[in-house]
Amino acid sequence: MASSSSSTPLPNGPLKIAIIGFGPFAQFLAKTFVKQGHILTATSRSDYSLLCSQLGITFFRDMDDLMEAGGQVILLCTSILSLGDVIRSIPMGRLRMPLLFVDVLSVKEYPRDLLLRVLPEESDVLCTHPMFGPESGKEGWNGLPLVYEKVRIRDHALCDNYLGIFQAEGCRMVEMSCQEHDEMAAKSQFLAHTFGRILAEMGIKPTPMDTKGFQALLQLRDNTTKDSFDLYCGLFVRNKFARQELDKLDLAFKAVREKLLERTKDVELH
Amino acid sequence: MASSSSSTPLPNGPLKIAIIGFGPFAQFLAKTFVKQGHILTATSRSDYSLLCSQLGITFFRDMDDLMEAGGQVILLCTSILSLGDVIRSIPMGRLRMPLLFVDVLSVKEYPRDLLLRVLPEESDVLCTHPMFGPESGKEGWNGLPLVYEKVRIRDHALCDNYLGIFQAEGCRMVEMSCQEHDEMAAKSQFLAHTFGRILAEMGIKPTPMDTKGFQALLQLRDNTTKDSFDLYCGLFVRNKFARQELDKLDLAFKAVREKLLERTKDVELH
Ligand SMILES: NC(=O)c1ccc[n+]([C@@H]2O[C@H](COP(=O)([O-])OP(=O)(O)OC[C@H]3O[C@@H](n4cnc5c(N)ncnc54)[C@H](OP(=O)(O)O)[C@@H]3O)[C@@H](O)[C@H]2O)c1
Ligand SMILES: NC(=O)c1ccc[n+]([C@@H]2O[C@H](COP(=O)([O-])OP(=O)(O)OC[C@H]3O[C@@H](n4cnc5c(N)ncnc54)[C@H](OP(=O)(O)O)[C@@H]3O)[C@@H](O)[C@H]2O)c1
Repeated sequence: MASSSSSTPLPNGPLKIAIIGFGPFAQFLAKTFVKQGHILTATSRSDYSLLCSQLGITFFRDMDDLMEAGGQVILLCTSILSLGDVIRSIPMGRLRMPLLFVDVLSVKEYPRDLLLRVLPEESDVLCTHPMFGPESGKEGWNGLPLVYEKVRIRDHALCDNYLGIFQAEGCRMVEMSCQEHDEMAAKSQFLAHTFGRILAEMGIKPTPMDTKGFQALLQLRDNTTKDSFDLYCGLFVRNKFARQELDKLDLAFKAVREKLLERTKDVELH
Repeated sequence: MASSSSSTPLPNGPLKIAIIGFGPFAQFLAKTFVKQGHILTATSRSDYSLLCSQLGITFFRDMDDLMEAGGQVILLCTSILSLGDVIRSIPMGRLRMPLLFVDVLSVKEYPRDLLLRVLPEESDVLCTHPMFGPESGKEGWNGLPLVYEKVRIRDHALCDNYLGIFQAEGCRMVEMSCQEHDEMAAKSQFLAHTFGRILAEMGIKPTPMDTKGFQALLQLRDNTTKDSFDLYCGLFVRNKFARQELDKLDLAFKAVREKLLERTKDVELH
């Protein structure tokens, strides 16, 4: 596991990062950011003052105060489905330019389009998706993919400094367009979440004779349902490629079922 | 990993085991049986003379010759769907009693009923299901479950000697009725195979940004499709509890889909 401890000097000095939305994923990221020595502020719909003070992060109940406090990077960590409302609540007039906006949403075309539409033209935009979370990244981030697109970058040094946080932890840096991301994510991550949700709906339980295959399903169910149902819905509602994967799953299930029923008929006739 | 090598003396001497059906699973079991020093003979629909001579096993093309050669245990390793035909081809008149019949089928009520119906009353019957195979057991059998029911046992020493093969490898010995096995297996192993087959049908592929959840699905697909499609069909056709799990999966998928579509409508109305 590659890791930088707070004693490693930051080659480009600490970054000042303001986090909007301090839910489970922001908390998970923030611990590593703080460990690396960056200076964090945060706001959220709910009050995380206590938790933030324990982590050494300045929490503002009010978005205006967060903007007033300044920063180089604004990190958007809200749920996929609330991003629109949250973005519209940012007092754009109070932003101190130049600024880098970064999002971490698990879909990418939607925030790219939204950010380009509503943010001031002078701000830079970096769209990212760390392909891991509190469960899969709990042993460190080494080898785990960080997908990103430099959507509108003028201050390349600042952007690279931000990406450097993930590089320093050993992430596999995967640059691709937001569209490519969404196509692939629909065929991989969305599918895995869908299987996890179906297994949860079925109420599967460990037995004294679990095979390794079934153990993998139990684990998938557990990891999937640790994420909010909102996150799962966002993967579907805000990724235009997801619907077609759901339809493919439906067809595949019907095909497998059909083969089983045909075979049963064969055996009964025999 | 617990393991006995051929140099470990067998506490009760070697067993003479005649295997019927020398496909992938029988080959996998046979390697460990030989390693423990047991004496094996085999027959199968196809010719495995060469492979058997390499493994130190006497192969008979003809079932009659296998019976003539004798043995204490007859191990049934054919596919689930062919067991009926294979059993009926055994020349019962030539069996040298007393004998222990053991089966390894992945369903248990079906072979129990069949064996009790067609085998001579003087023979003992042990129904087993090793809950692992060439993939999941390739690093050894330690901790992996061996499910069994002593269906009709008079020669307890012989039965315990046979079970001792699995105990010596560190298997978790799980005694339960064939019915309990089938109920649980439908909810666990059959489900895992069904997910694996659906994923194969969908043609899922690795991406440069796989999450750990999706990697688990790729692995499940690979392991499932290494088993024959016949094996998968057998899990369904010969386990009366499987149909209801398939229906539950159908309902669960519809419920998840419904939630996604409802949420999409909410977001669009908003
Ligand atoms: N969890 C992961 O493993 C993971 C991995 C990669 C990327 N992501 C992305 O990271 C983001 C956060 O994910 P998460 O796991 O923390 O859970 P989430 O349920 O997707 O988002 C929770 C966050 O959204 C905020 N929020 C939800 N509804 C809101 C509303 N109506 N108005 C204002 N704020 C609202 C919450 O604020 P309060 O807590 O203040 O209520 C909280 O900060 C998502 O975009 C997700 O796609 C997550
Ligand atoms: N694979 C596993 O991981 C696993 C684990 C536990 C239990 N089992 C059980 O072990 C048994 C064997 O499984 P397997 O993986 O080797 O594959 P399988 O496809 O279930 O069975 C292959 C065996 O069945 C024989 N067979 C198939 N159709 C036949 C027919 N019409 N007439 C005569 N013989 C026929 C094959 O003979 P030929 O090869 O001579 O053609 C071969 O010996 C099955 O009952 C299975 O449920 C398997």
